[in-house]
Amino acid sequence: MFNKEIYISRRNKLKKLVNDGIIILFGNFDSPINFYNNQYYFRQDSTFLYFFGINLPNLIAVIDINNNEEVIFGNNSDIDDIVWTGKELKINEIANQIGISTTYPLSHVANYLKNKKNIHFLPPYRAEHKLLLSEILNIPSEKQKLLASKKLIQSIVSLREIKDENEIHEITSAINKTYEMIDYAIKNIKTLQYEKDILALFKKFATKNDMNFSFQPIITINNQILHNTEFKNKLIPNQLLLIDTGLETENGYAGDISRIFPIGGKFTPEQQYIYEIVEDTYTKCIDLCKPDIKFLDVHLFAYENIALGLKELNILKGNIDDILTSGVITTFFPCGLGHFLGLDVHDMENYGEELVGYNDKIKKSSEFGLKSLRLAKELKENFVLTIEPGIYFIPELIKQRIKDSKYSQFINKDILEKFIYVKGIRIEDDFLITKKGAKKLGNHFPNKYNEIKEYINEIY
Amino acid sequence: MFNKEIYISRRNKLKKLVNDGIIILFGNFDSPINFYNNQYYFRQDSTFLYFFGINLPNLIAVIDINNNEEVIFGNNSDIDDIVWTGKELKINEIANQIGISTTYPLSHVANYLKNKKNIHFLPPYRAEHKLLLSEILNIPSEKQKLLASKKLIQSIVSLREIKDENEIHEITSAINKTYEMIDYAIKNIKTLQYEKDILALFKKFATKNDMNFSFQPIITINNQILHNTEFKNKLIPNQLLLIDTGLETENGYAGDISRIFPIGGKFTPEQQYIYEIVEDTYTKCIDLCKPDIKFLDVHLFAYENIALGLKELNILKGNIDDILTSGVITTFFPCGLGHFLGLDVHDMENYGEELVGYNDKIKKSSEFGLKSLRLAKELKENFVLTIEPGIYFIPELIKQRIKDSKYSQFINKDILEKFIYVKGIRIEDDFLITKKGAKKLGNHFPNKYNEIKEYINEIY
Repeated sequence: MFNKEIYISRRNKLKKLVNDGIIILFGNFDSPINFYNNQYYFRQDSTFLYFFGINLPNLIAVIDINNNEEVIFGNNSDIDDIVWTGKELKINEIANQIGISTTYPLSHVANYLKNKKNIHFLPPYRAEHKLLLSEILNIPSEKQKLLASKKLIQSIVSLREIKDENEIHEITSAINKTYEMIDYAIKNIKTLQYEKDILALFKKFATKNDMNFSFQPIITINNQILHNTEFKNKLIPNQLLLIDTGLETENGYAGDISRIFPIGGKFTPEQQYIYEIVEDTYTKCIDLCKPDIKFLDVHLFAYENIALGLKELNILKGNIDDILTSGVITTFFPCGLGHFLGLDVHDMENYGEELVGYNDKIKKSSEFGLKSLRLAKELKENFVLTIEPGIYFIPELIKQRIKDSKYSQFINKDILEKFIYVKGIRIEDDFLITKKGAKKLGNHFPNKYNEIKEYINEIY
Repeated sequence: MFNKEIYISRRNKLKKLVNDGIIILFGNFDSPINFYNNQYYFRQDSTFLYFFGINLPNLIAVIDINNNEEVIFGNNSDIDDIVWTGKELKINEIANQIGISTTYPLSHVANYLKNKKNIHFLPPYRAEHKLLLSEILNIPSEKQKLLASKKLIQSIVSLREIKDENEIHEITSAINKTYEMIDYAIKNIKTLQYEKDILALFKKFATKNDMNFSFQPIITINNQILHNTEFKNKLIPNQLLLIDTGLETENGYAGDISRIFPIGGKFTPEQQYIYEIVEDTYTKCIDLCKPDIKFLDVHLFAYENIALGLKELNILKGNIDDILTSGVITTFFPCGLGHFLGLDVHDMENYGEELVGYNDKIKKSSEFGLKSLRLAKELKENFVLTIEPGIYFIPELIKQRIKDSKYSQFINKDILEKFIYVKGIRIEDDFLITKKGAKKLGNHFPNKYNEIKEYINEIY
């Protein structure tokens, strides 16, 4: 938890921005696995963490702007809680720690809000919150997304998208621990047989450091799959291993790093060629990022740079403008160039990407490829985001695209075939937008072709 | 997944038992952490696993008994799923594997059930299921527990409580892996500093073995807390370390084992005395368990045996019958002696303990202590259950009890004070009820005082 004043100040800013009405924010509730009392590890809701910092389940906060009242609803422990969990919680003491003096039992929230008007709430992402919204505010679950407060979302986004010093410190620490974790596992790679053995070391490292993953790690030799969460493959020499992972700090801030390592220690020429296009795109995209630049334009630049690289390898053919107009490039780069990073690994994704990474002027595309770009709007100082260009050879997608002359006219199938075994390559680091441009956060950790080559050579 | 015939036969038995109407069973859905696409690891619902064996999210099954139709509702993968997750699922192929030929998209389920009568459903434990029940069957969430089908629950319990050979094999394998995991960590204890270091090794072991925990492990020097899930304490010599943990097999079957180890390698005399009472209770309770014996009576015997032991140590005083009538024993043994074990670590707890561990003749008590006994009814052949007597010195509870003369008249406060540092001791193993009695499942793993002493001596 940060200093009390940080939370008070964040709430004061929020009240000014929303300006009218009542805000209800749900903390996360216990999340059952296979029966109520067997629960997943607790992760607090990020909005709740941002404004209240209390890392405990089963709380609801209400801010009455017009009456300037802030209330935490939650239940004190009883003797059963103490016997079973050892925790003696007093809600008023907890609320006091973050500058809130009014608390009530959880069951009072519906009555407190009875007959109140202009209640702002966020679109719910957990079913528990959907149930609460229909119980407390009588809004059927299918209407909740529609009736969520755009004003509240836009106000929170305007605060959370600008990271302060404490937050940058937290994210940097998450990133450095993530680098350390990857380094620890890869340094041991010669003793490991399966993808899951790397996951085992990741979990060991995270637990010893009191950290959780910011998302389920991706550790795979099937790196053409963007979010592979299987870990059963053997680590086969000459395959590329993709690691895409992040730890989060105890305050909830995330890191998100991707690296490619050649199993056995050596890249093949095709792997090298593809790596170098990705690396070149990565470097140039970083250079483009600065305040007022649309991230959409950087993403479109990545399309172009990757297309040029693939054309040079003769995988793509034809006029570069025609190639880009056709959309064939999304065959090889079907995802977005990056996303916000903060209390969530896709920061604020639960508010809806249209109101987070887009705005009234820049609308989200529904086309394959572009629709996966989570951040498009103009960059601002103190944004924190990932940059993660990649090239992928996804057999099912290629099969589909090759059937369609709109795309296939630009593809040299024979050449492409020789590259399919490369499967996929991406490089991902996390950046702070400063006046001068994008500043990589965290320590240096090998990411260029030559660096990875040297790093892995020393291990094998 | 077991053989197709097992699932067909289980469903046929269920249809015969329920005999009339329509059964709806929900598989588990993806469970979001901090935004929809960031999800906890998937755990299938145990009832769904038992009757359908499909370990995939977002499925619903319907069994129309009168028309003898079985349907799986679920969605096939689209190209986005393949690109992002690499998985190409065809619901009809999956359903075929377990002997079901009718499948529909998920969105068809409400229409399929429209105007149908006599629909049996289970009490929901996940909020997603509550939402589905109100969407599909139009039953408000607060009425769902009440309207859940007692007939369906009792039918399923009568099947699931009797474990077949495959299930016993699975549970045994979960138990043996759990022993191995504990052994692996404790053999390394001299190199470990904190409770969390043991958790780190547990996670490493589980991941390498493709297993999840059957519940969040308890690894604590604060072993007076029954379900402590903090791991930040240092491993301090002369403290007792409680480990209560279980792995589950890929088919979902759980182990559940508790052990006490003296950190530094030596028990103090007070630790030894308490251990020996628990061990004696453990041994005698096992001997009492056999078909037709009420587990409630075994639990009550444990009360008596622990009371006699504490009286011998002069912690308790007075007439043994008065001691037992007073309920003072629940100060030191506030939980139940054991519970069913199977696809859930508290098997079938989601159906409601009254219909699982109790029956029309044996009703659940609401009193502190006895209300935590999850299993009370007559034992039957092929029940699998835990036996886990313990003695606990819980400061907050003792403080409460000592204020009340009803209890304090039986307590020698001065003697008790000398034992409080022991904090808590329990021994837990898993048993199969056979014609002859309770048979411990799994390999031998030290649990008696002398065995633990010898085992830990070799390590330090």
